[in-house]
Amino acid sequence: MSIQKDLSIGVDLGGTKILTVLINQNGDIIGRAEMETKPMEGETAVFRRILHSINKVLIETSIQKARLRGIGVASAGIIDSNEKTVLEAGNLGWKNVPIGKLLEDHLSIPVALSNDANAAAVGEWLWGSGKGHNHLIYITVSTGVGSGIISNGKLVNGVDDSAGEFGHISIDYNGQRCSCGNRGCLENLISGTAIANAAKYRLSQGEESHYLRGINQTKITAKVVGEAALAGDSFSREILKEAGFFLGVGVTNLIHLFNPDVIVFGGSVMNVSEFILPQVMQTVRERGIKSLTKTIKMEKSNLGGNAGVMGAAGLLLLQDPRVKISV
Amino acid sequence: MSIQKDLSIGVDLGGTKILTVLINQNGDIIGRAEMETKPMEGETAVFRRILHSINKVLIETSIQKARLRGIGVASAGIIDSNEKTVLEAGNLGWKNVPIGKLLEDHLSIPVALSNDANAAAVGEWLWGSGKGHNHLIYITVSTGVGSGIISNGKLVNGVDDSAGEFGHISIDYNGQRCSCGNRGCLENLISGTAIANAAKYRLSQGEESHYLRGINQTKITAKVVGEAALAGDSFSREILKEAGFFLGVGVTNLIHLFNPDVIVFGGSVMNVSEFILPQVMQTVRERGIKSLTKTIKMEKSNLGGNAGVMGAAGLLLLQDPRVKISV
Repeated sequence: MSIQKDLSIGVDLGGTKILTVLINQNGDIIGRAEMETKPMEGETAVFRRILHSINKVLIETSIQKARLRGIGVASAGIIDSNEKTVLEAGNLGWKNVPIGKLLEDHLSIPVALSNDANAAAVGEWLWGSGKGHNHLIYITVSTGVGSGIISNGKLVNGVDDSAGEFGHISIDYNGQRCSCGNRGCLENLISGTAIANAAKYRLSQGEESHYLRGINQTKITAKVVGEAALAGDSFSREILKEAGFFLGVGVTNLIHLFNPDVIVFGGSVMNVSEFILPQVMQTVRERGIKSLTKTIKMEKSNLGGNAGVMGAAGLLLLQDPRVKISV
Repeated sequence: MSIQKDLSIGVDLGGTKILTVLINQNGDIIGRAEMETKPMEGETAVFRRILHSINKVLIETSIQKARLRGIGVASAGIIDSNEKTVLEAGNLGWKNVPIGKLLEDHLSIPVALSNDANAAAVGEWLWGSGKGHNHLIYITVSTGVGSGIISNGKLVNGVDDSAGEFGHISIDYNGQRCSCGNRGCLENLISGTAIANAAKYRLSQGEESHYLRGINQTKITAKVVGEAALAGDSFSREILKEAGFFLGVGVTNLIHLFNPDVIVFGGSVMNVSEFILPQVMQTVRERGIKSLTKTIKMEKSNLGGNAGVMGAAGLLLLQDPRVKISV
């Protein structure tokens, strides 16, 4: 009698930490391990730490490897999911590291690799705010801005697995030059970096913030702006509202191109979504084509920081035609 | 012995004319009929003319109906392809006309319905400039601007079958208000209407056009601007180049979102593509993320005005899993 392969492992490989979970088909997290990535120690050291984190989760939960359907890895950067290779990841300092293949060879079980925004979209689609919706866009706003797009129940990957660069959509063709070469990119208008820069710029222009005026300019981050907004600072709320407006313009573009039924917002900037999403929704209502916006759902991620790692584990479910996913 | 169903009929239902073709799996057009739509005579009259055009093609080619796999219809407007219904088509004056179902009931063969830009994308993908490329975007620029998007060999339809509204992407969040409610839409910058308006505006501002100065302003259309450009008019060439720039900004956004391998340009404005596409390509090279733009193909439609009607016929091939399509 064969053992039922009812569990999957997800690994969220970030520049700072490696988060690993063991998950069942209902999206219940059965085991969890977190460790530092320490990418400066080199690829082999990181590979060993990933292996270690997987073993740790299996040992702590007393689960046999035979019960695993496989392992899914989510990583930032440019990924070739067919070749299971990280082509380029700035936060890891990696170029052409076939991390998925290495894990597969070492562990002799199926491994899937995807970029973190795509993985988070899968997570939200299978078990999160987007459950039951086959046309879903996941948008992440943190230091950078990205997205994962599901159309008709399939990831929109693109020919090089590089689709979903929502942060590099121009909504201002004559705007500020972006590091990518484009002008007026959303990343320069709504990312955590952009929010911090907007606050610093406005303060330098003499605008008043009761909360921020005592803080050294170099200490002003999006997190600090968010805390100020929570503490009632109208200056900071205005900055977040403005980011919400720009995000709304970008989301309207996405709605017109993809006609999704749900958009899920995640990433650290969404910790203060209450100051951003109302403006997003208002902008979409004002600017969107009515037949496309009237029934759309726009929601904060309810998986939060687990969306990517859960979605990574979910990649295996997507790839297994024997699994009937009830979405 | 059953008769091989190796042929399909495509119907391009426009506000002015109904174009009908009989086509084989290689995309060879075996029969063709064209008649006026005359939408003012009502839905039933148009329905009868579609039936008549189908019969005409079958009779003229002496093909039995039993050899048809089915009929595909491409229509402008908002389409529900599952319900085979035109939800709204301004050029026909139709609301909620289940034209596909009516044809299917009447003829007792499978009928597929799609919007015209999606159909053209399918046509270019199966038999045109996009053959062999599973990540294709078809952009049409004529009176309006639209697109059909194929990702991983599947149409990106959206939940209401309304994806691909490329004409209503904003690249200028503070720009001119569009009829759709948005601001800075591509349709207001690159459509035939926009090109004519740009020419009229510049002339009213005292700019000189050797070719256009003798022409009554009310007679200036995108077609006239195109003719002027062909005749060497630098004023008109400049206007088309500017449209090419804006189109390039929009195309860069599409590349960043979809990571396609080919973009095909059609529609009447592309009759003078030699004055537009070079600027599109230059803008994409200047502004796009290099890893996404370095191998992309950008081509004028080689099916031209037949893309929609051939793609309509192709819809049946897509839906038939017995057909192995060599793309």
